[in-house]
Parts: sequence; C-alpha cells; structure tokens
Amino acid sequence: MRDLWSISTAELADGKESIMRRGNVYQIANGYMGYRGTLDEFGPQQLVGITLAGIFDRVGSAWREPVNAPNGGFTSVALEGVELSTLGKKVVRHRQTLRFANAVFERETEFASKGTSLTIRSARFLSADTPNLGVIRFSITCSNAAKVTVRTGIDGNIWDLNGPHLIQMSAERRESVLLLQGLTSEASKRVVVAEATDLSFGDEVHEIKGNRNLRVINLRAEAGKVYTFHKYFAVFTDNDAVDKPVAEAAIEAVRQAKTLGYEACMASHSAEWRKRWDQSDVKIEGDNDAQHALRYSILQLLMVGPVKGSANSIPARALSGQAYKGAIFWDTEMFMFPFFLHTHPEKAIELMRYRIKTLDGARRKAKTEGSGYRGAFYAWESQETGDDACTYFNIGDPSNGRQLRTYFRDKQVHISGDVAIAMWDYFRLSGDDSLLLEGGAEVILECARFYCSYIHYKRDKQRYEILDVVGPDEYHERVNNNAFTSMVVKETFTIANETVRHLRREHPKALRTLLRKLRIKGELPNFRDAARRLFVPKPDAKTGVIEQFDGYLGLRESTVEELKARMLHPNEYLGAGQGLAVPTKIIKQADVVMMLSLFRTRFSAELKKANWEYYEPRTEHGSSLSACAYAMVAAEFGNLDFAYKYFLKTAKIDLEAKYRVYAGSVFMGGSHPAANGGAWMTAVFGFGGVQADENRVAINPRLCGKWRRLQFNLAYKGDAFRVNITKTSVRVDASPSNSRVHTVLVAGKPVKCSPGRPVTVKYGRTR
Amino acid sequence: MRDLWSISTAELADGKESIMRRGNVYQIANGYMGYRGTLDEFGPQQLVGITLAGIFDRVGSAWREPVNAPNGGFTSVALEGVELSTLGKKVVRHRQTLRFANAVFERETEFASKGTSLTIRSARFLSADTPNLGVIRFSITCSNAAKVTVRTGIDGNIWDLNGPHLIQMSAERRESVLLLQGLTSEASKRVVVAEATDLSFGDEVHEIKGNRNLRVINLRAEAGKVYTFHKYFAVFTDNDAVDKPVAEAAIEAVRQAKTLGYEACMASHSAEWRKRWDQSDVKIEGDNDAQHALRYSILQLLMVGPVKGSANSIPARALSGQAYKGAIFWDTEMFMFPFFLHTHPEKAIELMRYRIKTLDGARRKAKTEGSGYRGAFYAWESQETGDDACTYFNIGDPSNGRQLRTYFRDKQVHISGDVAIAMWDYFRLSGDDSLLLEGGAEVILECARFYCSYIHYKRDKQRYEILDVVGPDEYHERVNNNAFTSMVVKETFTIANETVRHLRREHPKALRTLLRKLRIKGELPNFRDAARRLFVPKPDAKTGVIEQFDGYLGLRESTVEELKARMLHPNEYLGAGQGLAVPTKIIKQADVVMMLSLFRTRFSAELKKANWEYYEPRTEHGSSLSACAYAMVAAEFGNLDFAYKYFLKTAKIDLEAKYRVYAGSVFMGGSHPAANGGAWMTAVFGFGGVQADENRVAINPRLCGKWRRLQFNLAYKGDAFRVNITKTSVRVDASPSNSRVHTVLVAGKPVKCSPGRPVTVKYGRTR
Repeated sequence: MRDLWSISTAELADGKESIMRRGNVYQIANGYMGYRGTLDEFGPQQLVGITLAGIFDRVGSAWREPVNAPNGGFTSVALEGVELSTLGKKVVRHRQTLRFANAVFERETEFASKGTSLTIRSARFLSADTPNLGVIRFSITCSNAAKVTVRTGIDGNIWDLNGPHLIQMSAERRESVLLLQGLTSEASKRVVVAEATDLSFGDEVHEIKGNRNLRVINLRAEAGKVYTFHKYFAVFTDNDAVDKPVAEAAIEAVRQAKTLGYEACMASHSAEWRKRWDQSDVKIEGDNDAQHALRYSILQLLMVGPVKGSANSIPARALSGQAYKGAIFWDTEMFMFPFFLHTHPEKAIELMRYRIKTLDGARRKAKTEGSGYRGAFYAWESQETGDDACTYFNIGDPSNGRQLRTYFRDKQVHISGDVAIAMWDYFRLSGDDSLLLEGGAEVILECARFYCSYIHYKRDKQRYEILDVVGPDEYHERVNNNAFTSMVVKETFTIANETVRHLRREHPKALRTLLRKLRIKGELPNFRDAARRLFVPKPDAKTGVIEQFDGYLGLRESTVEELKARMLHPNEYLGAGQGLAVPTKIIKQADVVMMLSLFRTRFSAELKKANWEYYEPRTEHGSSLSACAYAMVAAEFGNLDFAYKYFLKTAKIDLEAKYRVYAGSVFMGGSHPAANGGAWMTAVFGFGGVQADENRVAINPRLCGKWRRLQFNLAYKGDAFRVNITKTSVRVDASPSNSRVHTVLVAGKPVKCSPGRPVTVKYGRTR
Repeated sequence: MRDLWSISTAELADGKESIMRRGNVYQIANGYMGYRGTLDEFGPQQLVGITLAGIFDRVGSAWREPVNAPNGGFTSVALEGVELSTLGKKVVRHRQTLRFANAVFERETEFASKGTSLTIRSARFLSADTPNLGVIRFSITCSNAAKVTVRTGIDGNIWDLNGPHLIQMSAERRESVLLLQGLTSEASKRVVVAEATDLSFGDEVHEIKGNRNLRVINLRAEAGKVYTFHKYFAVFTDNDAVDKPVAEAAIEAVRQAKTLGYEACMASHSAEWRKRWDQSDVKIEGDNDAQHALRYSILQLLMVGPVKGSANSIPARALSGQAYKGAIFWDTEMFMFPFFLHTHPEKAIELMRYRIKTLDGARRKAKTEGSGYRGAFYAWESQETGDDACTYFNIGDPSNGRQLRTYFRDKQVHISGDVAIAMWDYFRLSGDDSLLLEGGAEVILECARFYCSYIHYKRDKQRYEILDVVGPDEYHERVNNNAFTSMVVKETFTIANETVRHLRREHPKALRTLLRKLRIKGELPNFRDAARRLFVPKPDAKTGVIEQFDGYLGLRESTVEELKARMLHPNEYLGAGQGLAVPTKIIKQADVVMMLSLFRTRFSAELKKANWEYYEPRTEHGSSLSACAYAMVAAEFGNLDFAYKYFLKTAKIDLEAKYRVYAGSVFMGGSHPAANGGAWMTAVFGFGGVQADENRVAINPRLCGKWRRLQFNLAYKGDAFRVNITKTSVRVDASPSNSRVHTVLVAGKPVKCSPGRPVTVKYGRTR
C-alpha cells in the first residue's frame, strides 16, 4: 500500500496557509480525537489541534464549536541553545509520511547549525484500540557531540477558532506523569491530558510556564548516537464514562501504555488497522492514481469512524479542526453512512445511535421552528444535544458586512428523512433490528410525525404537498415541491409504515410500548395516507426531465460564468433570496441528480441520463457533495468519462487540499469526509454497480476505461463478500464464515453464493 | 365653499420641483382625462400632462403607462416679441385658483416688460358632462398700446415618463379647426386632439412646427382693452365608441362646443358639479382647516370618478400623470370605492365594471403564476386588459443598482378578495343586483375558485391555511396565515356562497347559465367547506393581540429610527427579503389594523384598541394607505386625538403635496386618491360612526374635540339620506324621494326614517 509522503524543503518555506493545508492532509484520528498533521515542535500559530469528538463549548456569543485538547504530543529540540523548527532556516532535509496501513504519521528532519547536523525522527499514532491514547516515538541524532535541549510534555497554548474554551487551567506533575487540565467555559466539563515518557537520558527538570507543562532535558549528545524516547498521552473528559476522576483515568491510561511499551501499543493498533483494511479496502488495478486517491479517502473514513459505545457521529469536517462548528450535517447519513454500512456495520450503528441520542433535541427544534411542529426535526448543524447550531443569518454579505438571512436551519427539512432513511437502511441491509428497538423505531416515527405536521393537503389536486423548503441546492430557498425533499419525505412515511409492520410481526410488545409512549397510534393512518398521496414531481412526458421544484423550469437560463462576471465581490454568495443565482436555473449542487443517486434503484438509466444532461451544465458544483452524485449517476447510465472525471475530483479533494480554506477571516479548511464517502460510493455503487436492498445484492459492473480490475468488500445481513470485477467477469467470494447461501444478482443473473465457495460470472462488456 | 388659491411671485421662482408639485395640487380632471395644474404657456419641461384614462402604451422594454394626449390647451403670449412666462423674470403678480365648486382652474398673471404691463387671465375646465371636451377662456389686457403675439393651438411636444407614445404624428387644419393626431406605438391606437377657437382679433396665420399645430395672432393691442377668446379642445381615441372616424368625432365635438359657447358649456358643467357636491359634500363646523382639506379630498375623488359606460377604474395616482404606470391597485376597492358607493353608486358600479372587463386578464394571471392556479387572480397593477403590469423585480437597490425580487405581483393574493368584497358590497348596500348579473357573480365565483386552488388543508390542525402570501405590510413577504389576507379570503368564500344563494332565489336561470359556463357546480361544496374551515389567526386570549402572520410575534423588536440609522443609502428599501425591517416587527403600513378597519363591524372596541396600541408604534406608515386605517380604528375605540391627527395627515396629503416625488430618477409624484378616500372614510365611518350592512345603516357618532357639527350624505339601497351630527344629537333627513321607510340605528337606538321626514335623536356625549 502506497503511503503519502513529502516534502521538499522548498515547500516548507511557503508560509502559513501551506502549513495549515498540510495539517489537514497529514492528520491522523481515531474516532475519539483527531490530531492535525503538524510537527512536534509546532504551536497554536501553526494550527496544531487535537480536536475531540462530541464535546462542545461556546465562549460568549461566538459559535459553539468542538473543544481542542491541550497538545500532549509536544516536543521541541534546541541545538546549542538554538530552537529547531522547520519554520526556521536551518533545515537540510525534511520528509514526512502518512502510513496508509495504520494511520501513523512520521517525520524525519535534518537540521544544521554551526557545523553540527541534528536529525529528528518521530512517529505518532492515535491508538485504534485504546481511544483516549496517543503514542509517539521520538529520536535525536547529532553528527557531532553537542549540547541538546529537549522540551517535551503538554502544550496548553492551543489553537481555537472561537476559544479559548478551557478555563481554570491547572498544571501538575504526579510522580513522573505530567497533567494539564481545565474546564470548558460553558458547561464546566473537565478536560484533562496526562503524559508519560520513558526518557532515560540527560538531566530532566520540570518546567511549568503559562499553559505549558514540560520536561526540560539537557543532554550532551554524543556524535552519531541515537537518543530515543517514547511519549504516551491520554485525553479524558467528563464525557468519558469512567469510574474514577478523569485525571486518575488519564494517569492510569498513560502508565498502562508505558508499561506495555511502544511496540506492544503499535502492534495492537496495527492489528486493528489490518482488520479495518481487510473489511474495507478497494483495489483498483490499472490506475495507480485513482487507487491512491481512493485509498486515501477510505483511510480518512476509517480514522474518524466513531468509537464503539460513544454514540458520536462524524462532523462535516470530521476531526480535522473546529470548522463548521464541528457539527454533524446530512453529509453523514447521505455520504459517509453507506461506506460504513457496507463495510463496518458496527460503526454504522454508532452513527445512528447518535441520532437516537439527539432525538430530544430534534423534538425541541420541531416545537420551536415556524409555527411549531410535532415529532422530530433534526438539526441542520447538530452538536452533542441535537439542538441546532445553525444560525438564521448564516452567511455574510461581503459587500457591506451585513448578515444574510438564509433558510438552511428552518427549511432544509429533508434532514429528518435523511436520518430515517439511514436508520431503516441499517436494519434492512444489516438484517439487525436491534437498532430499531433501542430507539431507531422511535426516531423513524417521530420523523414521520414531523412531516405529517409539515405537509399540506392540496384539495384541488387531491394530493399532499410539501411547501416552503430548501432542497440540496441552497441557491433556491423556500421552494415548493422540491423533488428531492418530496421523495425523501414520501420514503419516510413508507419507512414508518414498514417499521410498524416489522415491529408488529416481530416485537409486538415493544411496538405497543412505543406507540403508547409516543401516543401516536391514531396518527398511523395518516402516515399511510401520506405515503400514498404525497406529491413527488413527475418526469416530463417528453423530455424525461424532473422539475427541481415548482417553477424551476420557468427560471432564466444562465451560466456560472455569466453570474461570476456579474459579481460585485469575489466572495459574493449567489443565493440567499436576492443572490444572482436565485432567479436563474443555476444550482449550487446536485439536487434532482442527488435524488436519482439516493434512490438509484427506482429510476431507469434513460431517466438518469435525461436529468443528468439537463442539470449538469446548470450546476456550479459549489459544494463538495455535488461531484460524486453526478459521478455515480453518470456511471449508472454509462457516461464513464464524466463519471471518472468527477470520481477523481471527489477522491482527491483532501489529498490535494486545493479547496478554499478561508471565507473572509473565517477558517473553513479541514477534511471532507462526505466527499471521501462519495468517492467510495462512486467506486462501488457507480463503477462496481452495486445495488443492495432488503431482498438481495445486485452487481451491474461498468468499469471505466483504464481499470482492469476492481475489488471491494461488502457486508450484507451479517455476512461478508469480496467482489472482484474485471472487464468480462465478476467473481464473488462469500466468506467461509457466512451464515447462509445468498443469491446475488450479477449483471442481471441470479447467482447462488455459498459460504467459502467463490463464484465467477462472465458478463458482456457493453451493456 | 373656500377655493384653493395661491401663489406669491416668490414661490414661482422656486424651480422645477415646485412647478411639478403645483401641477399636482391644481390639477383638474373629468374621469376621461386629467389636466395637470400647469399654466397655459408651459411645455413638457414643466410636466404639462393631459393623461387619458384607460389607454396604455409601451415603448420598447420600458414600463407600460397611460398615454398623455397632445396639449390642446396651449397658449403663449409675447409682448413686443418677448415671450411671457411665469418662469421668467417679468412677473409682477400671479394668482392661480382651483374652484372647488366646479373644478375650474383659473390664473391671472401680470407681466411687465419695457414699461408696458400685460395681464393674462384664463380659466379652464374639463367638461363634467361632455367627457372628451376641454374649455378655456383666455384674455389679455395691456396697460399701453403694444405689439402682442398670441400662439394658441395644440402642442404635441408632451411630457412622458416612458414615451414618446404617439408615432406617425400628423398636424392639419380643417377649415378653422386644428387637428393633431398620432398612433400609440404598441397597439396603433389613434389619439386625436381637435381645437377650435372663437378668436376674432388680430391677424391669424397658421404655423405647424415640429409637433406643434398653432395659430399665430399678431395684434396691435390698445391700452386697457380686454382681448378675450375661447378655446375648445376635444380628445378622442380608438377606445371611444363613436360611429365615425375619431378625427371626425373630435372636430364635431369642438364645433358643437363652439356653437354652444363658453357660458353654456360652463353652465352645464357647473350644474353637473352642483349635483355632485349635493350628493357628497361633507360639512365640518368648527374646524376650517379640516373642512378645507376634506373638501379638497372629495373634490379630487369627484374629478376622477370614471365616465359612465367606460368600465374604467381609478389608478393609484388617478389622472395626475403616468406615475405607478397608471395602474389600478387594491387602493381603488379598499379606499376609494366606499366613497363612491355611499355617495355616487353610479360611479361605484363603473369601478366594478372595470373588474368585470378585466376578468379574463385575471384568469390569465391565475393560470401563469406559481404552478398554475384556477379562477381569477387579479393583477396587482392592473391596466386595460387586467394583465399584471407589476414586475417581479419591482424595486431597485440604490446601493448597487440591482433590481430586487419582490413578491407584490405573485403573492399579494388578497387583491382578488378585495375585488370580490367590493363587488358584493355594491350589491348589498345599493340593493341593485344588476351588477351581479352582468358579470359580478362570475367575478366573485372565479375569485373564490382561485382561492380554492391557492389554499392548503392542514390535516394536522384540521383547517385550511393560506400560505406564502404578502399582506398589506410589504416588508414581510412570503408569510403564512396573514390575518388580513386570511380574513379577506374567508370572506370571499362566504360571499361566493351568498352569491349563489341569492341567484338561486332571485335569478335561478341566470345561475344555471353561469354554473354551466364556469363548470363550477361541483366546486361549490368546497367553497362552503373553506368558508367554514379556513384558519384566521385569533386574538391572544390575554392580550387581545392578533398575530399579523405566523411567527410575527417572535420577530425582533426595533424602531423605525433604529432601522433608518442603519441604512446605508437614504433611499434604501426596508423590505424585499434581506431588508432591514424583515427580521423585525417594524411594518410598512396598517395590516392587522387594516383588517380591523375593513371588517369593522366584526371586532369589538377593546380588541381594536389592543391591536392598535400594539401595532401603531411598530408601523412606519411608509404608505399613504396607512394613516387613514389607523385614524378610522382610533376613532372607533375612542382615541380621538390620534384619529384626528392621522385624519388631517391623510386629508392634507395632496393639498400640501409634501410627499416624496422622485425615487432615484423615477417620477413618483401625483395625487393620492386612496388617501382622499381614506379621509372621507375617517370622517364618515370614523367620526361619523357609520356602519352599513345589508340590513341597516348604523350611526354611532364620535365627534372629535373642535368639531361642532358634521354633516354628510349617504346613499343606501337606492335611497338618500343626509346625516347631521352635533355633540349631542343626530338628525337624519331621509330624502323626500326615498322609496320606503328605513330603520336607522342611531347610537344603538332603532329610528324609523320616513321619506321627507327628518328625525333627530339625542345621544350621550361620552360613550
């Protein structure tokens, strides 16, 4: 497996933005926390961040955002009293590597000062099997005997967008363990970092200075000798369910790790990673570029999948920092969830538990939005409680500094249905109904109830309509009968009905309890009626085009270029009521095509083609969620060139990090896990042609030009498959441990797949 | 009757804006055309305008607007070769007068040049009994013998906002009649002006120069001798139903008038005006200021009432020019119609015939707006066809010159109900159902049908709702359940049901024909259901406040001052989606209070007080329609000081002409007939306390402080009453020609009023 590595010394000098971008590209994470790909000696100015999952804080009236932990991975080195940093001019060579196999970040830097060269080598990982733990190996070698000073410990001077979040900071040393702790300013949650080392050279003194709690080691280094030590740091917060004070837990964790030692920690970490890759690697033969980009995307997802039992989800910028308020958007259910569902159901269920955990927040939102709704209206930007972090005035007008009213929060109602669909997909594709019983069914019914209180019946046309919404295309707000939203809402009603049917058959007592708890029995006929009579825009009989919303086809034709030429400010937003795109057909991102992609089993290739060709030239792709939807649908109707182009664009977004990172003075950079998921979906659903439903898995391959072979794994109903596609054949390996024989539909042919018995099917190259 | 007169010579020099304002103040009109109060010698630069009712034209892509006729009233005088004009420096004294009694405009100006003084006296009127005719008496006197040149005839160089509208102009002299004619550029409608004079002094030569068709009279004037002549001009267009070419008709008209002579024309004109005042004068004793302002308002309305048989209505700026596209708004039905209905039912019916004439336009609009509606959606800005002249981008952003999307045209749906309510009011207060039979019933049913296709049923709340509308307060667009709109829509359904009931009883055959024509029988149960179950926001149980629309009470508190302080440009519009008022409770004009005023018999004084006191401080009064609604409602719950203040503001708006006349470079000046009607309503409905419905007239007087006596006339069910109110008594004079005895409810007491038998009722001073 190719790793990611760079970097020439020339690149090191190119300033703050490049440091920040590399921090994204080289980040590591373990679901509990993310550690940006910064160097050991970096500080807050270099955007060092250890961003924690599921703990948020607000300072004053600024945005609530996730909390960054003090940096337990800090180490700096001085040579003859001169601090060494890649930011200075003493770098001879530098190389840093992100190991794809096990998410280990390594650096090797040779500095030269006054005739002496000093090389730093370090490796760090966030333990995949011990969520609170970070482990670092650090070594120094000098060409000549020299005086070296190492500072290592916990740096509490941390980067924050809207911080500082930790107050009442205290630093201490308990026996050999360093400790730095503070309280979040809003809810007084304790955040503690402990650090231990096996340092055995030089003279160590302890130094507490400001928010830094450090060991200072003065060493007369011998020429050529390698001085190595290991650091273990642990982060605990009041969110961790531990049976002792969190400081004690942190101390214990680093002591345990130190006792185990670096190699043992690394071994169990790597074993876990081998399992992960084994479950989810996708192999592409004949296209190293695509292979590398897709593996990087998968790596990103594997790093940020939630910790078991945490009921956490994945924010839109994952754990790469505090951008987008660390909030969970529809991105998770629509773009990341399918990857986990098809490769790591045990992570997929955790993502759904997050929505169960935040159901009460969704209920609160429903009550308070508009004139008051019932049921569950999930947050557009969801943090730990499920209350909405999205503001009503969410975008600034750069021309005059005024805030623009946007309707993301109150009108993008498809979010509840996105949740319900993912919830149901977990059950129907994993076959595991435990999620429904532990709250999933309640979520689904409450989402349907919300829609029941949102929709209106149009007597004149004898149908329900869903009015005044924002679809995925945020440039056209407050529209009626948005096809995507309507389809999602209709599906939610159907799912609610199916949920009741399933529980009635399999868990009648649980159903009774649930219906009583929700006092919802009398509303069930309404769900059935709505599932039948909710209007979803139909394709035009002649052109096959589905109108994105009422009146869309009557809007003015334009081009993205025309609009950009008319902009008065380079950062002008094209939507928000009076934006330049609003009266035109130009859309921000896939909307009808997003619907075709989400409900891809329901629409014909002809219809997909007609709509793709209509909407694509009118799409700005102003969101990272757009290209992959267009890629997937293009693959499905056979425009493989376009599918490939948009696949690569999606898969490389974080690898190349060429996205915009500042909007005005606001930092928006970070990873794009939704695009990472979109890349996986395009490979497996698009080119691989996988369509799974409650009855069966179907595989209809459409390999693009260069690809000789595409291999991927699928989890389905508790069993596992490896699929191996060439231009002419599909081989399905049902795992020997599978529980039963499955019939898989390969290129239209039903194929029996018995445990441990590979089957190969030939298929026509052109379909 | 006091007349309006001015003007000191100092005022004459104050420039273009003052000339333009005086042109509004001193205008005359006769329903067929309006003639701005400019002087004989003025030209297009001085905004001379003879604006025609009901004929419109568009040039290129500019706004369609009414056509101005060539100025048949032009006369200029030169003394010893020097042109005389009030704009020059030779004015010794000047006085101009608008005669309230008969709408005659007079001017008297003394000029002095080279030791000679020359006085011009002229009087002009637009015949109240011969709509196409204008008549002028013009005289000249010199202090010394002098050479005088008079140019008189037709000036085709006319003022237009978006003209020139007349093309292929031709000038000719047929025998002694001058003729100037042209075609409108859009529809090639002929507009012709003929002029005849009885000039009998000097040497006359004929001069055609550019678009001017003039007689040039050179005269050696004797000292002290009065040289008088009379001008008769007639305007005809292809809209006039005449049995000969319109040029012939115009020639014949001026010849006839000339044969009759000035005095005879004046006599029949004045007789008609005596009748008008006799039907509609309001006398206020004890308050000359209010008396004068109110009479001026009434005069304005009497001048612009439509010509019998024209099926024309009254534009928002009446016939004072081309501002607001000469379009008819809801202003007519809601603010002017009541005056005509209660004093000149024969004009009221004409206003309603205009809505019958434009029903097909309203049907076209319904079909094409939104996703397509049924029935009749009347134009927000209605011209001769009823197609909507209102643009979707109707307001400019002065900061960047961009056009703002407004929802006046497509969402201000109350317009159809406003029409239906007026249509029904005509029937129920005049007792005359002929209007229903000639198309009024069709209008009402089609309006109800439109609403049926617009409303939605909210199953969750078991009610119909009316969503996504703009109420009278245009700062808050696209709101749900706007109280005013909901009440209007509900009333429309009720009226539709009543209409069917009435026709079934009285004209069953006509009903059958109508139902068949409209294929609407199957929809009638829907009207009944909607009338019962349409939601109208209810008063808060504790405060009595009715929420203007869903969510209004949750908006931010502010003040008009705060918003103005934050404006980035003095002409910044406060609405249109992102305007400063949008997220606040600041409203442009009466909305809930407008509802209380329109449906004043349905709400208690307590409720009116509660809502008035809540909304008044939050109202900008950014429309001339606002103050009178607040005045009326204030009178009704007894805040007479405030009622009086807003009454005066309303009544004086055109008299003082202190409104804004330019918005950027767009001329917005002109008269405010809706405010004129509002002034009358405040006097009669507010202070007079008149409430009439289909069963009876009620009078509940609330005279304000200074007023010793208030006298007005009322037409009701074909009969006439004069009401005479003092602080302690109400006297009702039923006309001797009344058809029957009426029971009038005076201060709560039923009083029998027999024809020709005055009744006086005492009432308590404080109620």
